Amino acid sequence: MRKILLFAAITMVQWLMAQQQQSPNGEVMLTFALTAEGAPTYRVDYKHKPVIKESRMGFALKNIESFDRGFTVVDTKTTTFDETWQPVWGEESHIRNHYNELAVRLRQKNTGREMLIRFRVYDEGVGFRYEFPRQAELKYFVIKEELTEFAMTGDYKAWWIAGDYDTQEYDYTESRLSQIRTLHDKAVTPNASQTPFSPTGVQTALMMKTDNGLYINLHEAALVDFPCMSLNLDDKKMVFQAWLTPDPRGDKGDIHTPFSTPWRTVMVSDDARNILASRLILNLNEPCALKDTSWIHPIKYVGVWWEMITGKSTWAYTDELLLEPLNKVDYTKLKPNGRHGANNDNVRRYIDFAAKHGFDQVLVEGWNIGWENWHDYDFVTSYPDFDLKALNDYAHSKGIKLMMHHETSGEAGNYERRLSDAYKLMKVYGYDAVKSGYVGDLTPRGEYHYSQWAVGHYLYAIKEAAKHHLMVNAHEAVRPTGLCRTYPNLIGNEAARGTEFEAFGGSKPFHTTILPFTRLQGGPMDYTPGILETQVWYTNPDNKSWARSTLAKQLALYVTMYSPLQMAADLPENYEKFADAFQFIKDVPVDWQKSVYLEAEPGQYITIARKDKHSDDWYIGNTSNENGHSSQLSLSFLDKSKKYEATIYADAANADYEHNPKAYTITKQKVTSKSKLKLRAAKGGGYAIALRVMR
Amino acid sequence: MRKILLFAAITMVQWLMAQQQQSPNGEVMLTFALTAEGAPTYRVDYKHKPVIKESRMGFALKNIESFDRGFTVVDTKTTTFDETWQPVWGEESHIRNHYNELAVRLRQKNTGREMLIRFRVYDEGVGFRYEFPRQAELKYFVIKEELTEFAMTGDYKAWWIAGDYDTQEYDYTESRLSQIRTLHDKAVTPNASQTPFSPTGVQTALMMKTDNGLYINLHEAALVDFPCMSLNLDDKKMVFQAWLTPDPRGDKGDIHTPFSTPWRTVMVSDDARNILASRLILNLNEPCALKDTSWIHPIKYVGVWWEMITGKSTWAYTDELLLEPLNKVDYTKLKPNGRHGANNDNVRRYIDFAAKHGFDQVLVEGWNIGWENWHDYDFVTSYPDFDLKALNDYAHSKGIKLMMHHETSGEAGNYERRLSDAYKLMKVYGYDAVKSGYVGDLTPRGEYHYSQWAVGHYLYAIKEAAKHHLMVNAHEAVRPTGLCRTYPNLIGNEAARGTEFEAFGGSKPFHTTILPFTRLQGGPMDYTPGILETQVWYTNPDNKSWARSTLAKQLALYVTMYSPLQMAADLPENYEKFADAFQFIKDVPVDWQKSVYLEAEPGQYITIARKDKHSDDWYIGNTSNENGHSSQLSLSFLDKSKKYEATIYADAANADYEHNPKAYTITKQKVTSKSKLKLRAAKGGGYAIALRVMR
Repeated sequence: MRKILLFAAITMVQWLMAQQQQSPNGEVMLTFALTAEGAPTYRVDYKHKPVIKESRMGFALKNIESFDRGFTVVDTKTTTFDETWQPVWGEESHIRNHYNELAVRLRQKNTGREMLIRFRVYDEGVGFRYEFPRQAELKYFVIKEELTEFAMTGDYKAWWIAGDYDTQEYDYTESRLSQIRTLHDKAVTPNASQTPFSPTGVQTALMMKTDNGLYINLHEAALVDFPCMSLNLDDKKMVFQAWLTPDPRGDKGDIHTPFSTPWRTVMVSDDARNILASRLILNLNEPCALKDTSWIHPIKYVGVWWEMITGKSTWAYTDELLLEPLNKVDYTKLKPNGRHGANNDNVRRYIDFAAKHGFDQVLVEGWNIGWENWHDYDFVTSYPDFDLKALNDYAHSKGIKLMMHHETSGEAGNYERRLSDAYKLMKVYGYDAVKSGYVGDLTPRGEYHYSQWAVGHYLYAIKEAAKHHLMVNAHEAVRPTGLCRTYPNLIGNEAARGTEFEAFGGSKPFHTTILPFTRLQGGPMDYTPGILETQVWYTNPDNKSWARSTLAKQLALYVTMYSPLQMAADLPENYEKFADAFQFIKDVPVDWQKSVYLEAEPGQYITIARKDKHSDDWYIGNTSNENGHSSQLSLSFLDKSKKYEATIYADAANADYEHNPKAYTITKQKVTSKSKLKLRAAKGGGYAIALRVMR
Repeated sequence: MRKILLFAAITMVQWLMAQQQQSPNGEVMLTFALTAEGAPTYRVDYKHKPVIKESRMGFALKNIESFDRGFTVVDTKTTTFDETWQPVWGEESHIRNHYNELAVRLRQKNTGREMLIRFRVYDEGVGFRYEFPRQAELKYFVIKEELTEFAMTGDYKAWWIAGDYDTQEYDYTESRLSQIRTLHDKAVTPNASQTPFSPTGVQTALMMKTDNGLYINLHEAALVDFPCMSLNLDDKKMVFQAWLTPDPRGDKGDIHTPFSTPWRTVMVSDDARNILASRLILNLNEPCALKDTSWIHPIKYVGVWWEMITGKSTWAYTDELLLEPLNKVDYTKLKPNGRHGANNDNVRRYIDFAAKHGFDQVLVEGWNIGWENWHDYDFVTSYPDFDLKALNDYAHSKGIKLMMHHETSGEAGNYERRLSDAYKLMKVYGYDAVKSGYVGDLTPRGEYHYSQWAVGHYLYAIKEAAKHHLMVNAHEAVRPTGLCRTYPNLIGNEAARGTEFEAFGGSKPFHTTILPFTRLQGGPMDYTPGILETQVWYTNPDNKSWARSTLAKQLALYVTMYSPLQMAADLPENYEKFADAFQFIKDVPVDWQKSVYLEAEPGQYITIARKDKHSDDWYIGNTSNENGHSSQLSLSFLDKSKKYEATIYADAANADYEHNPKAYTITKQKVTSKSKLKLRAAKGGGYAIALRVMR
């Protein structure tokens, strides 16, 4: 760190001592300074150009003097950290965590209270957090507003979804920052639970691009015991302010010291691929908290799910009214509706299919009583046509596990009370992974999906699951912030618009060219790709939806949308229709030694190559927007000593996501590290390549 | 039931069919009628005079048409019920439940929705509730306001505490209804968590008296999964309206059909003793839900408690700041404050005392870490000077059990997450009863102590405790409504201003002449009587408080304040100072065969005789207000074939709660069922009598 005298760019900042810290490669520079009022500010430069202009920091507090000004610097400490750690699963088997740190201890003159701001400067950006040591006069306080700003230097292009306390299942909008206000209404599409809060509110991770070709990403890391942060844009000044999710009183954080906030993150690069390659979010999280992780493993699965999503079958067992409270209903006396998906025969069919094609697990939704009520699920009682023991036994006899499903209907309070019994039941029958869901407004009432209480709830479920050696894949929970480093049994989340929306009218064709820059920064997404029958009316004649994707692109997503948990979401009969294309889904690994980001431009295309964690095979995927994309790929990342057989699953020449989505070609050729491949993704298309070492 | 044509007393009620039901003895008459608008109303008469005038019923609903008018009667059903049941513990060993019922099924013309109102008419009053059957168009709804009214016929005298969503620890005010508004501000005294809601809001059970000498009591029974009801007075019309505790959104009930509300109760008599003798609230609750109740038993206990309440010792172990989060604090490295009450030596002293004097249990508060923080208690980790195993072993070796203490600091959400481990720990060490506490504002934030969620929380804890065969005594929880019939492991509650306030400046001398009419209607109170050293400065010189009670009255409370859980709250050394008076506390049973209410006038005096459940001995107690009271007691309730030795613990002639509280006499005399006793309670005094059968 160098202490220098800065001539302040803004009038209120005058001749002040500023503290700086640079990234290991020197390209990213963080500057901390106090204004004349003693208000903390920071600034981020990249290659000597401003990325974040001087921006205010601090908190407005409830009933006591705010942490926003009147500070002096007590001391500063700088440290360097460089370590390589091995994730339990991931995009690569070794992750380097290399940063320079600046810790600034501040004291507020009027109150004597102290606050520490810790900055970590990486080659790809900066993370910072606030720390509140235990102090006699600061044991407990309530946050009214976080004042952290992110001051942009211009009217950038952004890929954004509307800020909302309850959902992230929105389609992305690409626009200038100045256009957010105009486009915001249209960006808020219906959802089972939603609470937009401002006409210029957007969610993180927010991906932006400057006119100079700089890629900037704002997010947070290690969201624990704190409200989830969105951003609110002052679109005159082009300044984002942190916007925390309120509790039912409208407050924004109950803090008991000692406490550290989540990290606020600014990633920056002049190459979009570096954003994808960055592990900044994971690195800012605490190391693994679990001593034994041997029971955690990646999962490739099928499920009794898409048939309900498309409306072909139902979660509920009966269409009759349940006249009694759920715990008194005798389902055997009710008339089955004849369309219940989770019935013994159908589940056996999926088990057979999974076993035949080498999958690990079969998810079954709608197995448990209560779907008629959407209330007070007990998570332990199965419908009469779902034989819990027999089906698990059958699955195990074929080397398959069933995957548990806990839809809470948003009743997180009820879920907590029943969690222990629900997890115990899983162990009794041999389940080791659960998909949980939080569809609808939360209970306790007044809590939002992203409030401090709810954030605590999701982590509570993850920690309890770990005690039982269970893996969790939570849907409609808060967006991930890298906590899977600390709790690697969090093997998936939804927290974005997933493939299900392709059966609800469709998502924009560019959707999967953005998610890796945004949602996936925080951790894997259970995106449920693999809808090879993209035209949903072939699955259910009553559903006129169609996926905004070619068939080939559906295959590519297994590479471009990193997750240790990958579903083959389509129906068995649809996979049998496209058996040769399905082979890629069967072959593609779900855990990786290494990832190479070949091409990337948010909203346009992403091409990624990944090396299998357990072999020398490589896989490539490309996802492209509605304009398609031409790639010239150098395979120089391949092992120079090896030869590979490349199986290329590509859009046919006449393919097109709108009019001819299922036209694909499968070709094979021999390649080496010297090869170059010329490939073409159709409009809304993509390609997938398996590169198997030849022996 | 007789259907009669009533000429309506109020203009909007015209020639309508009314339904009536009378009590078994014919003295109480319930009339149900629809107004011309189809709004349901009820009315209660006693001995042919109106007690509750025609009063509206129904609910304002959120977003859908309210349940307030447009109804027609579909059908009515009348039944008679007469049964005698045996409580696990109680004021008597056999309870008769005898009522006539009227059930009115209503259909709302516009919506087709149905609602049922069920009335039960007892000799001492009426209970009614609303029932919502499952209907295709009414699976779920939200209550904005309960519209139930209780229309008084005049400006009655009332003994009331201020309506509040968070506390009931207020002193009573005696006033006319018309004076409530003026006196309300003064009635709201400071509390750790409090939310008064209206200048004419009062709590139930509300006790009133008409100028004609009629005693009227309004309360509710079987409060399950619903917000707690207070009452708001329209003091022009003298009409109370039900005022439900809101959820954080301001709504007043999430209802999933089928659902029945709690019972709204109106008790009435021209003899105040009948209100005390009534079991209407218990009878309106469901029968015992526990198959095995053999593990439930009354408890007489002492505790490491009053010494902290008076400020003589502390709950916390250290005065140092805990710099780390609680789970990382090493208490052995911190400096003890030297005043920690729950230390091994002191607890052993209480155990010795309990064993010597025949008590069952020793409560120990402040045994577990976290009192310095008042946050995030784990309920399983003891302070270094409290040896969990050794102390329990020591207690058990002397035939004593320790009583567990769980102070949640209002963090009910945290408590739920830790409940299972906390209860399991109790079983490991041999605890079978827990005192829980909810001091301070609740979390999840925005919930009130009496909200629907909180009501569900307390019952959840009781039910979970029952699974572990544990008894619960919850403080700062919602006021009881007879649920101890259904869950007799709920052996106590606070939910009113307890004896602790005598160390915080004192309660009014008439306090215990009101509680049996109000708070105790719903179930036993852990009032913690027995403060023989009424002048607190003899216990802690820094505390200038004094109990508004004579010493003799403290003894009487063991009879007048019924509870299966009775504490001898004072310090061992104080009991040794008054060993002869202490004998009554040692002798008095905590479970009864029979109770006879000899004298009663709310705000003035109560005299009760009770027969030991396990012998033929009787005990009498009298509590009197600041004016004192003279009794002429006939002992005709005694067994005619037996002779008794009466030991009379009375105020000395010159005793007085203000100036001479500890002047008492102990006299003995032989009595039979023909005897009459002339007794005098001093100002703020009382008397206690043990009547032992002579052999």
